[in-house]
Amino acid sequence: MRAFEIQNGFGLSHVVAVERPKPTPGPGEVLIKIHAVALNARDLGVINGVYNPNLQHPLIPTSDGVGVVVALGEQTSRFKIGDRVSGIFVQGWITGDPSEKVLNQSLGSPLDGMLAEYTVLHEDGLVHVPEHLTDEEVASLPCAGVTAWHAIVTEGKVKAGDTVVVQGTGGVSLFALQFAKLHGAAVIVTSSSDEKLKQSKKLGADYGINYRDNPDWDKEIWEWTSGRGVDHVIELGGASTLNRSVASVRFGGQVSLIGLLSGHTVDGFNIMHAFRKKVRLQGINVGNRDMFEAMNRAISQNKLRPVIDRVFPFEESVEALRYLAEGSYFGKICIKL
Amino acid sequence: MRAFEIQNGFGLSHVVAVERPKPTPGPGEVLIKIHAVALNARDLGVINGVYNPNLQHPLIPTSDGVGVVVALGEQTSRFKIGDRVSGIFVQGWITGDPSEKVLNQSLGSPLDGMLAEYTVLHEDGLVHVPEHLTDEEVASLPCAGVTAWHAIVTEGKVKAGDTVVVQGTGGVSLFALQFAKLHGAAVIVTSSSDEKLKQSKKLGADYGINYRDNPDWDKEIWEWTSGRGVDHVIELGGASTLNRSVASVRFGGQVSLIGLLSGHTVDGFNIMHAFRKKVRLQGINVGNRDMFEAMNRAISQNKLRPVIDRVFPFEESVEALRYLAEGSYFGKICIKL
Amino acid sequence: MRAFEIQNGFGLSHVVAVERPKPTPGPGEVLIKIHAVALNARDLGVINGVYNPNLQHPLIPTSDGVGVVVALGEQTSRFKIGDRVSGIFVQGWITGDPSEKVLNQSLGSPLDGMLAEYTVLHEDGLVHVPEHLTDEEVASLPCAGVTAWHAIVTEGKVKAGDTVVVQGTGGVSLFALQFAKLHGAAVIVTSSSDEKLKQSKKLGADYGINYRDNPDWDKEIWEWTSGRGVDHVIELGGASTLNRSVASVRFGGQVSLIGLLSGHTVDGFNIMHAFRKKVRLQGINVGNRDMFEAMNRAISQNKLRPVIDRVFPFEESVEALRYLAEGSYFGKICIKL
Amino acid sequence: MRAFEIQNGFGLSHVVAVERPKPTPGPGEVLIKIHAVALNARDLGVINGVYNPNLQHPLIPTSDGVGVVVALGEQTSRFKIGDRVSGIFVQGWITGDPSEKVLNQSLGSPLDGMLAEYTVLHEDGLVHVPEHLTDEEVASLPCAGVTAWHAIVTEGKVKAGDTVVVQGTGGVSLFALQFAKLHGAAVIVTSSSDEKLKQSKKLGADYGINYRDNPDWDKEIWEWTSGRGVDHVIELGGASTLNRSVASVRFGGQVSLIGLLSGHTVDGFNIMHAFRKKVRLQGINVGNRDMFEAMNRAISQNKLRPVIDRVFPFEESVEALRYLAEGSYFGKICIKL
Repeated sequence: MRAFEIQNGFGLSHVVAVERPKPTPGPGEVLIKIHAVALNARDLGVINGVYNPNLQHPLIPTSDGVGVVVALGEQTSRFKIGDRVSGIFVQGWITGDPSEKVLNQSLGSPLDGMLAEYTVLHEDGLVHVPEHLTDEEVASLPCAGVTAWHAIVTEGKVKAGDTVVVQGTGGVSLFALQFAKLHGAAVIVTSSSDEKLKQSKKLGADYGINYRDNPDWDKEIWEWTSGRGVDHVIELGGASTLNRSVASVRFGGQVSLIGLLSGHTVDGFNIMHAFRKKVRLQGINVGNRDMFEAMNRAISQNKLRPVIDRVFPFEESVEALRYLAEGSYFGKICIKL
Repeated sequence: MRAFEIQNGFGLSHVVAVERPKPTPGPGEVLIKIHAVALNARDLGVINGVYNPNLQHPLIPTSDGVGVVVALGEQTSRFKIGDRVSGIFVQGWITGDPSEKVLNQSLGSPLDGMLAEYTVLHEDGLVHVPEHLTDEEVASLPCAGVTAWHAIVTEGKVKAGDTVVVQGTGGVSLFALQFAKLHGAAVIVTSSSDEKLKQSKKLGADYGINYRDNPDWDKEIWEWTSGRGVDHVIELGGASTLNRSVASVRFGGQVSLIGLLSGHTVDGFNIMHAFRKKVRLQGINVGNRDMFEAMNRAISQNKLRPVIDRVFPFEESVEALRYLAEGSYFGKICIKL
Repeated sequence: MRAFEIQNGFGLSHVVAVERPKPTPGPGEVLIKIHAVALNARDLGVINGVYNPNLQHPLIPTSDGVGVVVALGEQTSRFKIGDRVSGIFVQGWITGDPSEKVLNQSLGSPLDGMLAEYTVLHEDGLVHVPEHLTDEEVASLPCAGVTAWHAIVTEGKVKAGDTVVVQGTGGVSLFALQFAKLHGAAVIVTSSSDEKLKQSKKLGADYGINYRDNPDWDKEIWEWTSGRGVDHVIELGGASTLNRSVASVRFGGQVSLIGLLSGHTVDGFNIMHAFRKKVRLQGINVGNRDMFEAMNRAISQNKLRPVIDRVFPFEESVEALRYLAEGSYFGKICIKL
Repeated sequence: MRAFEIQNGFGLSHVVAVERPKPTPGPGEVLIKIHAVALNARDLGVINGVYNPNLQHPLIPTSDGVGVVVALGEQTSRFKIGDRVSGIFVQGWITGDPSEKVLNQSLGSPLDGMLAEYTVLHEDGLVHVPEHLTDEEVASLPCAGVTAWHAIVTEGKVKAGDTVVVQGTGGVSLFALQFAKLHGAAVIVTSSSDEKLKQSKKLGADYGINYRDNPDWDKEIWEWTSGRGVDHVIELGGASTLNRSVASVRFGGQVSLIGLLSGHTVDGFNIMHAFRKKVRLQGINVGNRDMFEAMNRAISQNKLRPVIDRVFPFEESVEALRYLAEGSYFGKICIKL
């Protein structure tokens, strides 16, 4: 089968097309013919060696995809031939909190990922997917969708009347925007692009702030909420934005730490602001199968559709990764097989 | 000022129009000119002596209304002349859990209610109301709206993808339907009228069951949810429906006990079903000011509109109560001053 | 191997000693040499056909026991030869909420139970057990211990300063008493025996009520708590006590429905009291492996010891069940192999 | 009456003994004769101008004390002459979340504090206190006790079997140790003094780490918990310890940000560790009256006694503050009137 591998070093130039033997499902496993893949900023971190400098090569990159079950190993019972399925990001993290051992079993690093014609996964690491979605739309769910659901719903317990800030317009941010709106909350989007703010409003955003024009966006949020502050900030800026996120929330509010975009070490983090207002900073690390299935129920019931920026053919997977690296997308970048 | 009083006995024939002196606000109190009143099943329970057989007369009935602040007592700070306000159902229940003493301070019994041209209330017992609503719509919020919010949001923690059952199409039920839909949940309505089921679907209900045609409505729910059961039942039938409500929910599901419509004593309550599926039966008693304000934020942000069945002029207040007693309404019955 | 079976009909006379072939562990399974068994009221319900009239015979009764791993099937990794382990009550209920299918996989009905020299269980259905306990003490944990932990800790969220009522002095009640005291709560025990109330106080109970002497025990509780009511009632009386339990709790309090002792159908259940005080009635059905392990950590850290009433030799298992049926025990009845 | 004031500048030399007129209670207020005062690190922050550089002088410092009601203003009902009471730290923060306006009404800054013979407070800002405690013990509750309760119980939801780390042996830390033990948790104390670690063990600590001898105390914690990590760290070191606190907790664990001891700005805060393990960083800002009363119930029921390091006579209040500044105490420093 055809696949892409990271070979012999870090960087996009080390992602190459290869032929691999088609895998065979063992006991408890199923063979999946992959139909679509979606990219995440993390995929670049893996490829560039930032995510794990000790990563073993060769490795098939990317964590998110969708396919159809084409063969069943022995002792499987959850799926049948022909079922459309996605793999969960952390294989084995079914529910509750994971052990350290389970936490390391993520697709696309250190486990082989989705950028191939076939993959074999344990049936416990798969979910049924919403019927009304295209393959590309489904492929965008496992990392970005589940992360946003985990932050907004599972931990954020969003409710109608709340106000949520999402930073940027990548995959996690737009899912967070959609899930917050689905629960009747108001949403503020921050971006450096007026065009993207405009598109966000079409998706339901109530207010947009261009942080390039207004670096003091926390003050603008404070005014827009009439001095109440927001209930929840989806923090993706990392080092550069944390203090402003804390400044934006109300007494007792939440800042979800997802932080995939900028650096991971924050200087000048002002703890005093955090404890004076009893702010909760909640780390979010994708999520478990229970959350994935709860999200799928919500998406199916409400016929919600993920936002796809652009779809590349499988042969152009490296171009797709390069386009991701440019960072000017709105929603998900996908690859169709 | 003009008012209606329950005088010298129980029953609708004891509700009579009277003249009373216009009240004066003391320290911490405000004078409100009432614009609209909304009726609840409880009002009939009070009038008929079912709710409290020892009720002291004369009493101005009804708990829910809206008006405008026309005078301020000393030491008030939360409102200004001209503000549109509603009283909270249990005066003094601001937040958290009430003491027994506070719990007894409800409007319309034992405190004087809203069926009058003016009333005086402590400023702590009032809330600002959503601007986009008519007076009648606002008047419908204090009891029915807050009860539904408390059940669906505060205790029910409804989320997108959930399924909620609401029994009947009175005020609480339709608010519960609207609040559940506002959070992306699916809603099943039970009613004895196909016409009302049709109207419910216009409000967003996903499915309707005529329990007269199908007394085994719990089985129909079980099938509609593909054997999963629902997440939450808003139980208003009381004695007659509790076992079926428990049978309808999934493992770990919730039944909110509101129970204003039928009797209050249940025979044949099957505890075994409740504990086998780890069902939570949650009593709900209207709610506090915090819930009222949270609900108002949700209503304002989402421009949600309560459902008004019919509006009577003040002079026809007794006719309005009689219409309520007939029980064939869809949404709230209001009185305009 | 030696075992006891329910054969050809219901009732204690149908529990007979038999020889069975020693089982062999399949993939994922382990063979356990059983050291001790503990009895629960449910075991009598199973034996007498009350619990499930359609139960298939022959069946090895009893759900709770402890033993040592003596052989490992293929593909096992959680245990090694020599580990002391207990089986979880509902095999397969690891965490979160169970499916209907999983919920039916309980030891002692419909699955074979513990009254045998050996058993084979899937490694996922086993837990490591506290080292400081005797075999009899460990054997008492799976049903009674986990039920009490689930009610008091997982759902009850007991905290220091709370007051908890436990009904009676059987296994669940004494565990509930111990777990509540372990968290700094006050505990009231109700019993028909002054002697047992005295023993309860030695275990830490703060107050005892003989409900035979004082059938209005809810009023006595109300007085003892200075009119505040208790935070939580562990309801085991079922039909006969529910209304008094509801009457005993404070506004916003909880009644855990466990209800194994008396009938399962309640007549005259007063819903109005439940919703007026916003009471939560929470069904509790044993619990999952996560709860079992959390309980074990608490027991180990605090060197807590379950209360054993009496230990019978294996040969006298039927006598042990008869003694259970007499109902005059204080704590757990165990069988030693 | 005699009092101490901060006058004309910052620093201990500006704290001087003065005569002030005895205050008179207005409507809703009570006059309290102060019996004892307890000191907090915050008092030094206020006196030194670190806490609020714009603080208005003169001001009576210190937030925590206890006294007896000696006169009642009009319209009071919660207390009677002779009641022993303490003021809550944030006057007006009764329950739920405070508004910004309420949050600023703290005793000892900007409101006059307790270092005086009498004070007048609104009756809503007072609580009854545990009878079994001495005046000095009660005086230590309002800031340090409530902060620890808020972190450990209200937000931390500690339970038996948990492991909690407390940093240092000041007032908050020792209360956190006591409250965690009261709920059956294991406690690890970190300190730079072996002597204080020894004293902590007498109070119930299960393990002590001298962070001077072992700066990698997070690794020692990891080993002591057999690689599981702890459930909760009470973070008081601020800038210097945050990353190690995050490193110490298990997946899904909590770090409570209280941070009164070292600086308030953290450099090099590693967000990635926080989100990889789904850590919750929870700001804690003393607490409300509800928490104070819940804590008092727990203290009374369990006859728990706060740890007093040393008691100074009123005349030596400046010496007491100087002793506080030296930082070598174990428990609370008090002043007796």
